[in-house]
Amino acid sequence: MAKFADKYFLADAWKIIEDGFDPEYGEVAESVFSQANEYMGVRGYFEEGYTGAHMQGSYFNGIYEEKKQGSQGYKGVVDTTEFMVNAVDFLYTRINLDGETLDIGTCNISSFKRTLDMKSGLLTRSFLWETKSGRKLELVFERLLSMKKNKIAVQRITAKALNFDGDVTVVSGLDFDTVHQSAKESLWKCRGQKAEDSRLAILGETVRTGQHVYSSCYIDTESGEKPAVSSIIGEKRVAIELVIRLDRKKAVTVTKKIYNAVHKNGSIESFLSLCDNGRKELEDVSFEGVLQDNICWWKNVWRKADITIEGDEWNQQGIRFCIFQMFQTYHGAAAGTNIGAKGLTGEAYNGNAFWDTETYCLPFFLFNDVQAAKNLLMFRYLTLKEAKERAADLDCRGAFYPVATISGKECCNLWQHASLQLQASTAVAYGIWFYEKLTQDIEFLMEYGMEMLIEICRMLADRGGFTEDRKKFGYYGVMGPDEFQMMVNNNCYTNYMAKFTFSYTLSVCRRLKEEKPKEMEALCLKRNLTEEECREWKEMEENMFLPFDEKTGIYEQHEGYFKLPHVDVDHIPVEDFPLYNHWSYDRIYRNDMIKQPDVLMFMLLLNSAFGEDILRANYEFYEPRCIHESSLSPSVHSILASQLKKHEEAYRFFQFATRMDLDNYNRNSSEGLHTTSIAAAWMNIVYGFGGLRSDGENISLCPSMPKQWRSYSFRIGYREDVLLVEVDGEKVCLSTLEGKAIDIDLYGELVAVGKEPKEITVPAAWRG
Amino acid sequence: MAKFADKYFLADAWKIIEDGFDPEYGEVAESVFSQANEYMGVRGYFEEGYTGAHMQGSYFNGIYEEKKQGSQGYKGVVDTTEFMVNAVDFLYTRINLDGETLDIGTCNISSFKRTLDMKSGLLTRSFLWETKSGRKLELVFERLLSMKKNKIAVQRITAKALNFDGDVTVVSGLDFDTVHQSAKESLWKCRGQKAEDSRLAILGETVRTGQHVYSSCYIDTESGEKPAVSSIIGEKRVAIELVIRLDRKKAVTVTKKIYNAVHKNGSIESFLSLCDNGRKELEDVSFEGVLQDNICWWKNVWRKADITIEGDEWNQQGIRFCIFQMFQTYHGAAAGTNIGAKGLTGEAYNGNAFWDTETYCLPFFLFNDVQAAKNLLMFRYLTLKEAKERAADLDCRGAFYPVATISGKECCNLWQHASLQLQASTAVAYGIWFYEKLTQDIEFLMEYGMEMLIEICRMLADRGGFTEDRKKFGYYGVMGPDEFQMMVNNNCYTNYMAKFTFSYTLSVCRRLKEEKPKEMEALCLKRNLTEEECREWKEMEENMFLPFDEKTGIYEQHEGYFKLPHVDVDHIPVEDFPLYNHWSYDRIYRNDMIKQPDVLMFMLLLNSAFGEDILRANYEFYEPRCIHESSLSPSVHSILASQLKKHEEAYRFFQFATRMDLDNYNRNSSEGLHTTSIAAAWMNIVYGFGGLRSDGENISLCPSMPKQWRSYSFRIGYREDVLLVEVDGEKVCLSTLEGKAIDIDLYGELVAVGKEPKEITVPAAWRG
Repeated sequence: MAKFADKYFLADAWKIIEDGFDPEYGEVAESVFSQANEYMGVRGYFEEGYTGAHMQGSYFNGIYEEKKQGSQGYKGVVDTTEFMVNAVDFLYTRINLDGETLDIGTCNISSFKRTLDMKSGLLTRSFLWETKSGRKLELVFERLLSMKKNKIAVQRITAKALNFDGDVTVVSGLDFDTVHQSAKESLWKCRGQKAEDSRLAILGETVRTGQHVYSSCYIDTESGEKPAVSSIIGEKRVAIELVIRLDRKKAVTVTKKIYNAVHKNGSIESFLSLCDNGRKELEDVSFEGVLQDNICWWKNVWRKADITIEGDEWNQQGIRFCIFQMFQTYHGAAAGTNIGAKGLTGEAYNGNAFWDTETYCLPFFLFNDVQAAKNLLMFRYLTLKEAKERAADLDCRGAFYPVATISGKECCNLWQHASLQLQASTAVAYGIWFYEKLTQDIEFLMEYGMEMLIEICRMLADRGGFTEDRKKFGYYGVMGPDEFQMMVNNNCYTNYMAKFTFSYTLSVCRRLKEEKPKEMEALCLKRNLTEEECREWKEMEENMFLPFDEKTGIYEQHEGYFKLPHVDVDHIPVEDFPLYNHWSYDRIYRNDMIKQPDVLMFMLLLNSAFGEDILRANYEFYEPRCIHESSLSPSVHSILASQLKKHEEAYRFFQFATRMDLDNYNRNSSEGLHTTSIAAAWMNIVYGFGGLRSDGENISLCPSMPKQWRSYSFRIGYREDVLLVEVDGEKVCLSTLEGKAIDIDLYGELVAVGKEPKEITVPAAWRG
Repeated sequence: MAKFADKYFLADAWKIIEDGFDPEYGEVAESVFSQANEYMGVRGYFEEGYTGAHMQGSYFNGIYEEKKQGSQGYKGVVDTTEFMVNAVDFLYTRINLDGETLDIGTCNISSFKRTLDMKSGLLTRSFLWETKSGRKLELVFERLLSMKKNKIAVQRITAKALNFDGDVTVVSGLDFDTVHQSAKESLWKCRGQKAEDSRLAILGETVRTGQHVYSSCYIDTESGEKPAVSSIIGEKRVAIELVIRLDRKKAVTVTKKIYNAVHKNGSIESFLSLCDNGRKELEDVSFEGVLQDNICWWKNVWRKADITIEGDEWNQQGIRFCIFQMFQTYHGAAAGTNIGAKGLTGEAYNGNAFWDTETYCLPFFLFNDVQAAKNLLMFRYLTLKEAKERAADLDCRGAFYPVATISGKECCNLWQHASLQLQASTAVAYGIWFYEKLTQDIEFLMEYGMEMLIEICRMLADRGGFTEDRKKFGYYGVMGPDEFQMMVNNNCYTNYMAKFTFSYTLSVCRRLKEEKPKEMEALCLKRNLTEEECREWKEMEENMFLPFDEKTGIYEQHEGYFKLPHVDVDHIPVEDFPLYNHWSYDRIYRNDMIKQPDVLMFMLLLNSAFGEDILRANYEFYEPRCIHESSLSPSVHSILASQLKKHEEAYRFFQFATRMDLDNYNRNSSEGLHTTSIAAAWMNIVYGFGGLRSDGENISLCPSMPKQWRSYSFRIGYREDVLLVEVDGEKVCLSTLEGKAIDIDLYGELVAVGKEPKEITVPAAWRG
């Protein structure tokens, strides 16, 4: 299926630049110009109001509403789902000049330019507005979310009259009357507003979930004359109206300093007194101060996590945009939240988090921000209760992690996905293993990890079944990551990852019994883990059925897959995509076409277990059967193609990765950024071209380089230092930032790396 | 799973008798006392109003409403379903005495008795009402639907004052303000009412589907004094109030003669003029006249279709009740309607018809009422357009018949059933084959049958797939009749019946090309049927994959079934049933437990193709895996157990069949009668104990008899005569009613049967 790039934004190494405004790209640009600081996120919408197509979006991590959807009354079928709500529009502004209200959709606008600076997170928008009466006003809008104090945001509007003296009216406020695009209504009730001089405050509450968002602000004006101020209190809005005197060619600024806080549950009184503290905090805030803090914060990020590409300005910009958005979305600020498929950039996928978290986002953070990685796992620990309730709903012991969630509860009301997909649970086990392997954080295992592993194993033991002769254990009626094979038996991915989960859990048990016998004894007692239960797990692990053809070395995606009718995916007409919209629902599920590769997926996750021959056989078998209708699929193929030294194929699968949203490849960036695919783009370079693997004894690298590039470099955080890897077509140069010694397996040989750069020639086979 | 009989009704060979009223059985009795005449049906509700639990139900065949249900927007997933609506309460009555309104739920009632007479269809209810003031009124309610003129119904109320003289007020009318139990609202708007003296008329229209029901009546009173009459016109009701003078011990009757007519589509003007004719028709109607017509009609039914059982009064009553309800529901009055799972007796299953029609009801009618059988097939012909639209929705050529329907459109909004079950379509082909085999009606084939067969084959050819090597053809992602194996490949039933459909269609093509070359050429041209297409069907038919274990002789229900984890169905706790209500939805679908037997089903449908050894092996393998959660399952087992001379087992599976509703075995007869199971009860005796088969050259019989019985007899219509089969433990006696000669294969030997009874000794092996 051909993909086309919309080259709408200008190329720049550190900035995203929109030069002139095209309403057709209005919502795509809103997504791309999203800002976030983990606590909150705001789309790049026009805060002064806009009558064109737009998705008003300011989100708070973990703030959601519920909706009931018919479940047909079957047990274990979800009927209440959660979705992220757009909350207070804290940038709310209206501007009136000469009886005309500013609206980029209808006014006479020129010299439009918008820039997102990835060194600071500053979003700047400037344009010239000429009224029907001929008055020309130059406007600059700037906004920032503080990366240091995550409840703080600042907005600055600069106005300059070019050809007149006169009044402009600016309304600035806080607005809960924002319509949720899918729900088609405002989901908030207002619990109180306050307007005192230049200070505004408002408290909103979601109707069903009863969560609170408090928003307050100071609005300062720097102009010659003190403006006339009056306050406006609406049903769900509080604002002030400023009548500002403009003198020709003299800039006037209106600065709004915002403090937002969320209250998910607990006492509302203590929350309100907390908000009161926020008032003091806000007094010391300045636009310039936040800007400087952010520059400093981002400098530290880029120092440890930057990727450079020479000879390819588009991918250079693209990969920085990916890293920038990943850090905006999540960076370890607080435990208790997860990463929605679209981050905090739009309503699509209901703001739900999927197993992408452990398989795509976790690796990114493990090598870039260990605290964030730990917090992602802590989310699973903090929602273990919900996962256990979900298991009970599904008639299973232990814990069944949701395939889609905000609060920890299962939010997917398509039972075939929610009840048949075990990979969310095994991904948590995989994440714990991955984290522990890289950090060697035994305390985490003892305090949190073991409990999750035990409950996941319990579910896996109960959900699976032995054949009647007890010779083989496996999973029946499951859906693997490849959602185009809906309800199958012995899905190879499911079985492989279940085997891995049992095996890892049992090995950790053995190790901890040796290393921490007393604590472990207490833990087993507390969690009621007996030798007998471990023996059962062992029996399941040893007899796990992995469908495999000895002759060809190919794993069968599930029992019977090889006998399915064949579909030539290259001959499906392009207008049939996406298939969910154009094919009869059941037709998708009854042939050998796959949406994303299950077998290749576990071969990537646990790469060191597979030799190159087996990997090649499976890659070459499954690749032509895959239609990549998951945005995550091309990355897996690209990474494995690199490993198989299929360099051109690797680049082909890579080419949409870093710019999926900037170039709107999937035609749906308007709905929000593909945040978790963004994580895969990073893996694409570091795992793919860099060849990073970490499931062996040492971390290993096998860098290659696309021939389209001159050179590239990447950094990975590892054991309290950062490894810098610089690659060109001929050589690899390794060094550590802090000078700590790290042993690296490079092209299969051990290299001790330190502060001093170490140069190694790229073997011929690895030259892209 | 144990079943318990509620022995609530009295035993009687020709009547259903309720002696005393127990409100706990109120709705069950309403179902059991249902009357119908194919055109309309009315539950046995108390027409005078009742505050206890009840389901107000008067239904017209094919009159339905629609409801929207979320489809998630996937193609081919139904979002609008149809359900039978309760229409006008044409028996509407209210009785007031001494300021007290009659209500069996609250008044002082004694000597309650209700009787349904299966020789006439007359429902009689009598009781004594004593008011708080001490007045005693004896009341008899009678009602009848005319079997001869299906728009006519009559009601007669007889009142006798036992200890007073005085007035009683009777309100009698037509009422569209009837609440649909599931929808919880009235689904009608009233388009007009009229009240002229003792004549009332009302026209109702369904809100969404715009169908019309017209109801009119004359109300006559026979009493000493002419009652005072006044008319009452409500929003959706028209009635008259009669103040009737009662003289002590003198009976007074109020007779209501009703004419109802439905209008599904077309011009409303011509419908209204038709209704005007009804007015004249009604003038000649009398209660006694309808009663005599009905007695005559039923006499003819029993002459041709009666089953007698000596030594088992419960099953004698039970099987007559089954036959009675079958004929009430359907008897060939008009083409264009089908048989809902609950007939015209309740709201359950939305009044939808399933493939039970062809597999269970059609055999009953083929041997009892050929016109009815033909009309059932005509329903499929008249809805071929909808079946073709459905196929297109499912990305298939040809015709895909709905698994549940009223109008012909698919009404099942569970996609897994509606999209994956092909048996509704193959059942139509089976029905055509069966009809043609028994009637040799070639004209039907040429005019209607071939077109359906061609379109079904087209669908089967398109929906199936070859393995990549083209060696095997089969169906992927299907659900067989056993709904506990949801989405499987090569379901043996599906494949077998598809093979049968191709094979039969091709053989008919060959035959007709020889017998009617010109007409057939024209038909092929019109239907665009080419040699090439027939060759393709032939290839599919020949290569149809039927999973079969040569060693054991057992058909595998679907590919991989033998490898599923085993569930010991006898050890599932009784409180877990029905499983849909107590098990996690997905848990039902991942083991070798079956709901009803797919393999045994096709072995019954095409019985002559299977030797006894193969049948035995399959029966003994599948029977212990079946939980009979379909009410149709025990009959299949009973019939095959008889064939395998497992006589006690046959009786064990039979024992709930004839009295499923009379004894409320499934605890849900309150929702309506299990009409299609009732058909299976007939098969149970005639196919099971009688051993009737008709798929060989002659029809064949192998009678056995349960040792619990003294003797039994049954009748089957065949080639314009009726064969009477009388069986006791020792001998079988055969004769034909009209004296036509019929060749019968009895216990494997050919017997020529005529008017003169022919006695044959039962072989030892066949003695129950």
